Amino acid sequence: MVQALGRNTPTVSTHFPWDKVDDVQGLKEKAAGLGVGFDAVNSNTFQDQPGQPLSYKYGSLTHADPAVRDQAVQHNIDCIEIGEALGAEALTVWIADGSNFAGQSDLTGALDRYLDSMARIYAALPRHWRVFIEHKLYEPAFYSTVVSDWGTSLLCAQTLGDKAQCLVDLGHHAPNVNIEQIVARLARFGKLGGFHFNDSKYGDDDLDAGSINPHQLFLVFNELVEAQRRDPEGFRPAYMLDQSHNVTDPIESLLNSAGAVAAAHARALVVDRDALTEHQRANDVIMGFNTLRRAYDTDVTPILAMARYELGGAIDPIAAYRASEWRVRKAQVRKPIAVGQAGIV
Amino acid sequence: MVQALGRNTPTVSTHFPWDKVDDVQGLKEKAAGLGVGFDAVNSNTFQDQPGQPLSYKYGSLTHADPAVRDQAVQHNIDCIEIGEALGAEALTVWIADGSNFAGQSDLTGALDRYLDSMARIYAALPRHWRVFIEHKLYEPAFYSTVVSDWGTSLLCAQTLGDKAQCLVDLGHHAPNVNIEQIVARLARFGKLGGFHFNDSKYGDDDLDAGSINPHQLFLVFNELVEAQRRDPEGFRPAYMLDQSHNVTDPIESLLNSAGAVAAAHARALVVDRDALTEHQRANDVIMGFNTLRRAYDTDVTPILAMARYELGGAIDPIAAYRASEWRVRKAQVRKPIAVGQAGIV
Amino acid sequence: MVQALGRNTPTVSTHFPWDKVDDVQGLKEKAAGLGVGFDAVNSNTFQDQPGQPLSYKYGSLTHADPAVRDQAVQHNIDCIEIGEALGAEALTVWIADGSNFAGQSDLTGALDRYLDSMARIYAALPRHWRVFIEHKLYEPAFYSTVVSDWGTSLLCAQTLGDKAQCLVDLGHHAPNVNIEQIVARLARFGKLGGFHFNDSKYGDDDLDAGSINPHQLFLVFNELVEAQRRDPEGFRPAYMLDQSHNVTDPIESLLNSAGAVAAAHARALVVDRDALTEHQRANDVIMGFNTLRRAYDTDVTPILAMARYELGGAIDPIAAYRASEWRVRKAQVRKPIAVGQAGIV
Amino acid sequence: MVQALGRNTPTVSTHFPWDKVDDVQGLKEKAAGLGVGFDAVNSNTFQDQPGQPLSYKYGSLTHADPAVRDQAVQHNIDCIEIGEALGAEALTVWIADGSNFAGQSDLTGALDRYLDSMARIYAALPRHWRVFIEHKLYEPAFYSTVVSDWGTSLLCAQTLGDKAQCLVDLGHHAPNVNIEQIVARLARFGKLGGFHFNDSKYGDDDLDAGSINPHQLFLVFNELVEAQRRDPEGFRPAYMLDQSHNVTDPIESLLNSAGAVAAAHARALVVDRDALTEHQRANDVIMGFNTLRRAYDTDVTPILAMARYELGGAIDPIAAYRASEWRVRKAQVRKPIAVGQAGIV
Repeated sequence: MVQALGRNTPTVSTHFPWDKVDDVQGLKEKAAGLGVGFDAVNSNTFQDQPGQPLSYKYGSLTHADPAVRDQAVQHNIDCIEIGEALGAEALTVWIADGSNFAGQSDLTGALDRYLDSMARIYAALPRHWRVFIEHKLYEPAFYSTVVSDWGTSLLCAQTLGDKAQCLVDLGHHAPNVNIEQIVARLARFGKLGGFHFNDSKYGDDDLDAGSINPHQLFLVFNELVEAQRRDPEGFRPAYMLDQSHNVTDPIESLLNSAGAVAAAHARALVVDRDALTEHQRANDVIMGFNTLRRAYDTDVTPILAMARYELGGAIDPIAAYRASEWRVRKAQVRKPIAVGQAGIV
Repeated sequence: MVQALGRNTPTVSTHFPWDKVDDVQGLKEKAAGLGVGFDAVNSNTFQDQPGQPLSYKYGSLTHADPAVRDQAVQHNIDCIEIGEALGAEALTVWIADGSNFAGQSDLTGALDRYLDSMARIYAALPRHWRVFIEHKLYEPAFYSTVVSDWGTSLLCAQTLGDKAQCLVDLGHHAPNVNIEQIVARLARFGKLGGFHFNDSKYGDDDLDAGSINPHQLFLVFNELVEAQRRDPEGFRPAYMLDQSHNVTDPIESLLNSAGAVAAAHARALVVDRDALTEHQRANDVIMGFNTLRRAYDTDVTPILAMARYELGGAIDPIAAYRASEWRVRKAQVRKPIAVGQAGIV
Repeated sequence: MVQALGRNTPTVSTHFPWDKVDDVQGLKEKAAGLGVGFDAVNSNTFQDQPGQPLSYKYGSLTHADPAVRDQAVQHNIDCIEIGEALGAEALTVWIADGSNFAGQSDLTGALDRYLDSMARIYAALPRHWRVFIEHKLYEPAFYSTVVSDWGTSLLCAQTLGDKAQCLVDLGHHAPNVNIEQIVARLARFGKLGGFHFNDSKYGDDDLDAGSINPHQLFLVFNELVEAQRRDPEGFRPAYMLDQSHNVTDPIESLLNSAGAVAAAHARALVVDRDALTEHQRANDVIMGFNTLRRAYDTDVTPILAMARYELGGAIDPIAAYRASEWRVRKAQVRKPIAVGQAGIV
Repeated sequence: MVQALGRNTPTVSTHFPWDKVDDVQGLKEKAAGLGVGFDAVNSNTFQDQPGQPLSYKYGSLTHADPAVRDQAVQHNIDCIEIGEALGAEALTVWIADGSNFAGQSDLTGALDRYLDSMARIYAALPRHWRVFIEHKLYEPAFYSTVVSDWGTSLLCAQTLGDKAQCLVDLGHHAPNVNIEQIVARLARFGKLGGFHFNDSKYGDDDLDAGSINPHQLFLVFNELVEAQRRDPEGFRPAYMLDQSHNVTDPIESLLNSAGAVAAAHARALVVDRDALTEHQRANDVIMGFNTLRRAYDTDVTPILAMARYELGGAIDPIAAYRASEWRVRKAQVRKPIAVGQAGIV
């Protein structure tokens, strides 16, 4: 539905076991019929699953007990297999491992166990696959997180090999950090694997992309356009939306987010790069800034609406979606969720 | 159990409906038999309860719909009634109301509705009761929270009247903020109602008190001792532990936290206050600091162990608790929780 | 020059003794000839001045020594007198007082001395004047600052009286704080005195307004437009630019900042407020957000250029300023500053 | 004086040109006579020096103009030469280069120029020397800083070679970051060069070590003791104090800081590491934490005083320093600084 109206979200990134189905081949065919492909698959060792023999309460890929690590490694390998069947070409690994108390965990030992587990997963990657390492500053671990920042993510990706790259979730950084520069650094050293786009004001708030700080999103795309110019061949980061919704209709939020990402990209594309380079060379600070600002101030709403229209999408996706009454019709064929289940936590 | 071993947690602060029981009078008598009393009661309009007619998804005391506000007000009045039966003398109100998006909520209108709802709750307070307003910077609302900081909490407490005071949860502030000064400010203007003690490194991490920053906990108690000296009669804040446990035994964490609070208090009590005042008067910065630091460096472990022993508690509460095998025995009479239910989120 | 080209900065806020002149009356007449008036005057007790008898090293209005406090109070009263001669109607007070070490200062005593000193300054205010209290989280004091946040500022303004209001400098808050909500709170309780506009990414960075986070600036103006609608008579905050320049020409940065403030205001004025109110009433979160976003996405550059043109200013102020060669000509009549003096610190 | 009383600061880290003298050999001999050696030398391209031909206003090692880069490279080479004459064995490079505005600087180009300049400095290092790269999140650059975090520092150290390592200044990180884990990561990958010890609550506050968060300092030393156990041969980080004083006597602050560093180290040394390892292996979270906390709670003041006494230092260094009236006597032979020069900014 999101792809039908917005025309700029051609692939889906599945989470296993959340999105597990029995008939993988059927899912692939159905998606192809809808014009949707599969991008990176995501493993999940951050929640215990019903029937799972060993708990991840004290860690998964970094657990002190090798049997738990084996279970977590095997889950990742299973994800790769399903992903292959779906036509995906990358695995995203995010682990919740860390500690809530100083002294709970051996900070260095935990990383060594992570690298050991990841090497086994890496060895199972098909020829053309990549593995994306996703870092996160905190939560659910509140004292230390094993892969907490891009520095650690980078060290791990370097240690594992060329197929390993870093994935940037915009909400997984410390306050005030310049994320667009992190993007530039990873791109410069060939380690930028992709993105989880979303937005946040406080922590990992998982709000719609660009809803809090659209200027930052523009500056991230400004670096992506720069990186593409430097290395038109090798640069191919994966873009994914990763957000969590409880006050909006998720379809509507995805439409909004996809629109915000497209707008940031469009604005970055209209930057006068020759003028920018010249101002930077001359240390003409105000004009360097104003060159970016002129692009950012451009209202790209009309051109994006026209692009959607020409590709067979909706000029106003949310209005079209509401007019379609898709949600109302779906609600009639799905079981309602009891009040109280989805409480605010 | 925590009170039996630690001897410094004589009261309990209940959450309704989490802790709801049918036989209020029986609970009160049983608690009295264990030497435990009831402090402040907490209302809960931040989660929908099974069977509740209207949802708090878009707010409770501040909801745009007066029917939802009525329901939330009535719940608070019910809590007061149960609290009275238990012998409590205060109500703590924390609401999750706020917004995830700019434009979702009218920031001023939401506060006005809050004040209106709270005035009705205030009117239902028994003679000697107080109501504590608890602020929180964010979560679950990720753009704006109606009562987000101590400034808003103060304005509300002033607007409501003398029985309304502010409650400080150590984890509910913006990064870097000087919490001990907020404590001093609220105490100075007669609006310090009490505390939820816990600790945090990133957000509202709800870790054991003093586990991340024991020095800050000491400085908070330093202000409390100062405030008590200034106003020995009127100063009576309520101290509560508010923490959430998923990697430790909650009893053990409570024992640790109660010990950390007692240690911070003991260190604040051994500060040489005459010397401190004299150094401050003379702008002898180093000696002012060193006067506090000498107290902080004091190992108060032995004196606290002796105090517990003399009051009939345990010298080493955690060792005594483990030796008692209380948890093992309780586990035999309680229903086990299925693996997978309590996954890390 | 800034007013001549931009046409939206009709008043100047002077700093004494930085901007002290011998001939106050002459300055006033010269400014009037240029179409410039005087807004709030600023006192400065955060730097020692040559020839000053007592140092502010350990505080000014809050100093432990009453003689230093007297000197600082008298300086503020002198500023009021000069301001009156210039036609100003407000005094802005920002003090650097605080401490670098726990134990250095008595947090409550310092505030009491501040209130006592401010009461004397307040008593010297002419009939129609206001006094603005400016808070700042930190710097130069790195442990505690006497007036560190809007809560403290508010308590002080309440204690002093109706003429005392709070001044918001956008860079003086803790990380992540929702500044537009602080603005809404102060406006709601009649205590919003005015602004120091600038922008920041890390601390009190004093960058050009809107250069880091133009969306936040828009949301601040959205609250200002709301506040004006609620109270068209009483609402009259003072808008000032407060920024510090060392990599740009200050005139150019002021032109950019004034343009960014005007753009944020213009965007806030084109919000469809009836639609917004209706969406908020109906909890239609996505459409509430999209109503604001539609206004924010509007490119107001052309309409602002036309407004400047019609008021006799420049369509492209920076191009006009550069064409005028004003800086080159001024440089010939002013003493050059030696290389090395203005080094980056 | 600091070494005479405290006995734990045997080396000095000089800043050029701040500390430049004409007679290098004489300085070395005089220091040797006082029992003081030279550690790392620091270059300074973050301030323009009187008489310097080209300004660093728009950068030094990363400047767009190769002539400015040449000047900055040469200054670093000069520092190495002086350092060699003094017997130092490392160069610390911290640059202020960055930008205040998006668009001012090409983020990737600036790093490439940095790597090019540093390669030339690296080539000039004597055989046994190391070069330390010091990162800093912000200030004086307020939008982007070329070497802003440990990830960038690491990439640069890797690119340059084995002699290049990362230097951690405790105040140069984003809020909330877990610095002890960064230390563990750098040590694990052989890139931990050394430290600038100090403390901070907000930004790069340069307060006395351990004055704000002594627990964090302990946890840093806990990782250093762990790293030393893993690699007793290769691990040799350089420890320096880097703090800035304007409300205390600098000698007294250095004595306090050196004492705090020694106390943190002593507490880390008394951790029962076998018990810690066993608790970590068994996921006994509470006992892992309590093992560290028991060491942290130990009052090491008496044992450190005795150690100073046995090494010929003072039991109470600050009291001894004050009794010596060193400052009073020095003041008589040095020119007083005019009031107003050293104002708080």
